[in-house]
Amino acid sequence: MNVKARAVNGPTEAFEKTEISRRNLDQHDVLIEIKYAGICHSDIHTARGEWGDVHYPLVPGHEIAGIVAEVGSDVTSFKVGDRVGVGCMVDSCGKCVSCREGEEQYCEEGNIQTYGGIDKHGEHTQGGYSTHIVVTEGFVLRIPDSIPFDAAAPLLCAGITTYSPLKKWQADTGKKVAVIGLGGLGHLAVKIAHAMGAEVTVLSQTLKKEQDGLTFGAKNYYATSDPETLTKLAGSFDLIINTVSAKLDMSAYLNLLALNGTLVNVGAPSEPLEVNAFSLISKRRSFAGSMIGGIKETQEMLDFCAEHNILPEIEVISADRIDEAYERVLESDVRYRFVIDTSTI
Amino acid sequence: MNVKARAVNGPTEAFEKTEISRRNLDQHDVLIEIKYAGICHSDIHTARGEWGDVHYPLVPGHEIAGIVAEVGSDVTSFKVGDRVGVGCMVDSCGKCVSCREGEEQYCEEGNIQTYGGIDKHGEHTQGGYSTHIVVTEGFVLRIPDSIPFDAAAPLLCAGITTYSPLKKWQADTGKKVAVIGLGGLGHLAVKIAHAMGAEVTVLSQTLKKEQDGLTFGAKNYYATSDPETLTKLAGSFDLIINTVSAKLDMSAYLNLLALNGTLVNVGAPSEPLEVNAFSLISKRRSFAGSMIGGIKETQEMLDFCAEHNILPEIEVISADRIDEAYERVLESDVRYRFVIDTSTI
Repeated sequence: MNVKARAVNGPTEAFEKTEISRRNLDQHDVLIEIKYAGICHSDIHTARGEWGDVHYPLVPGHEIAGIVAEVGSDVTSFKVGDRVGVGCMVDSCGKCVSCREGEEQYCEEGNIQTYGGIDKHGEHTQGGYSTHIVVTEGFVLRIPDSIPFDAAAPLLCAGITTYSPLKKWQADTGKKVAVIGLGGLGHLAVKIAHAMGAEVTVLSQTLKKEQDGLTFGAKNYYATSDPETLTKLAGSFDLIINTVSAKLDMSAYLNLLALNGTLVNVGAPSEPLEVNAFSLISKRRSFAGSMIGGIKETQEMLDFCAEHNILPEIEVISADRIDEAYERVLESDVRYRFVIDTSTI
Repeated sequence: MNVKARAVNGPTEAFEKTEISRRNLDQHDVLIEIKYAGICHSDIHTARGEWGDVHYPLVPGHEIAGIVAEVGSDVTSFKVGDRVGVGCMVDSCGKCVSCREGEEQYCEEGNIQTYGGIDKHGEHTQGGYSTHIVVTEGFVLRIPDSIPFDAAAPLLCAGITTYSPLKKWQADTGKKVAVIGLGGLGHLAVKIAHAMGAEVTVLSQTLKKEQDGLTFGAKNYYATSDPETLTKLAGSFDLIINTVSAKLDMSAYLNLLALNGTLVNVGAPSEPLEVNAFSLISKRRSFAGSMIGGIKETQEMLDFCAEHNILPEIEVISADRIDEAYERVLESDVRYRFVIDTSTI
């Protein structure tokens, strides 16, 4: 079937209306009528060719929320009308240790990315800036009734990307957690860590969003442009989630960790980061990285957000404004996630 | 009391015979007649002023083995004639969380280093290249009878520095552990990890010491000068202990870790290390640091080495050969640790 989409045709091109083909359903496939698609910073990196070669035209979008429109003959988990979502992956090998343990994001053969990948049918995958998508049922998430479609979308990438390391490194009661950057990922990290019981501190360049941060559940808010901040907070945190994908002075942030503390990067700057070994050795600290989360954990995150009334802050836009939204994301001028209303595609 | 020692008087000076003063025993102090003192790479960095300002004359040495010669009135753990050792620390605050948990190496006020520090009496500490030392009993270790004095010395720094991260990151049965560098620390890391039950791989610049590595308990030995090594071993190890204090391409080594793997630096290059965030994120890896170990854990390590017949490989030298030994350490021309016979001081 042909469906409407918005695509870029090159690294410096604007988005254009187009039609793309979605495969016919096989017995395990689910056809989703997309309602909303979030705009993730990585959409921009990929669309602009900053993360490697891209097959154009490219339809980005891996924060997808919608309704099941049709199911394959053997689909048992979903039926027409179900509220569902799709995140960064649409398939994986299913056989390796990572897949068997429900960590498809670390599939040893490489998971199939929602867009910009090549699927088992040999086709280039195309993402959620579109009216419909076909996904094998194992990679479809159930959206709890209490989460509106538009707010659900960003949870599928920004939500799980921050939930997974907060869970893994146990951001629970009694823990002091800092979040670097209060953007799309950061604001969800604050809400989730607070709901997990941690004492949350935001480390942002300025105090511009301080009131927001405190409203989201942070107890403390510091401007990193103030040179005293990094001195004053030395040795303070059990866990730091770095959501900033620009190159930071990692040693300065590692020094904010307490004994045995961990700083987890969820963003991926293209330049190498510099780490002073003394920053690690002097308090047995760790510098780690984490990438989205598995399908089972993504469902757990959605249910957690429903239970704790965690919703991303969003600005819904029409499809004509994607280019403008990209520019505003790059200027950090978004509170806190753009979501495309796909009825305008 | 005045005791014989070997000291340097400046960053480019040779060692000279000298006498230094040791304090009178207070009620908790132990006077140790030193039998052997190991030469650690950090002695060289410190003596040459590469790790910051130094108060000269400096007597290095923090791998000390000897016999109790006298005890203070309230000393209960040791008596004259006991076989004892001293490592990198001679005191700490005793009150902070780290000290209370037996991790004096991470004392929040900073532990008192065996040499090059300033102790509670306001005196510059002087190390083990000497005939005697006075140490408060809480920082004196018991050397098991089966470990000769000369071989005991290197365990007090090189042994605990490798034992502690191997224990912390659970280098036990079924784990694949790589050791970067087969020097003073590396050769003990191999022996200890093997005794803990891990499958050990040595990553050394060349295959020159391959036979030694296999004898120490390694199952595999690779030359990192062979460009295929780093490709072939990608994703292989649960834990990597990096004992090399030169600047390595950390991302290349991080890529050798399996999912959730950790690379622990125990050396501290003076230059920052470059880390590609993708190396961490793509398999939820960690880059960590570890510094010696606490007193309780150091005793545990000595007992473990006695139980498993682990002894460092040493070359005993007279005190006149310290300068020559330093040069040979810098050229990696030592199998595997120089130990000074302090009867020649």
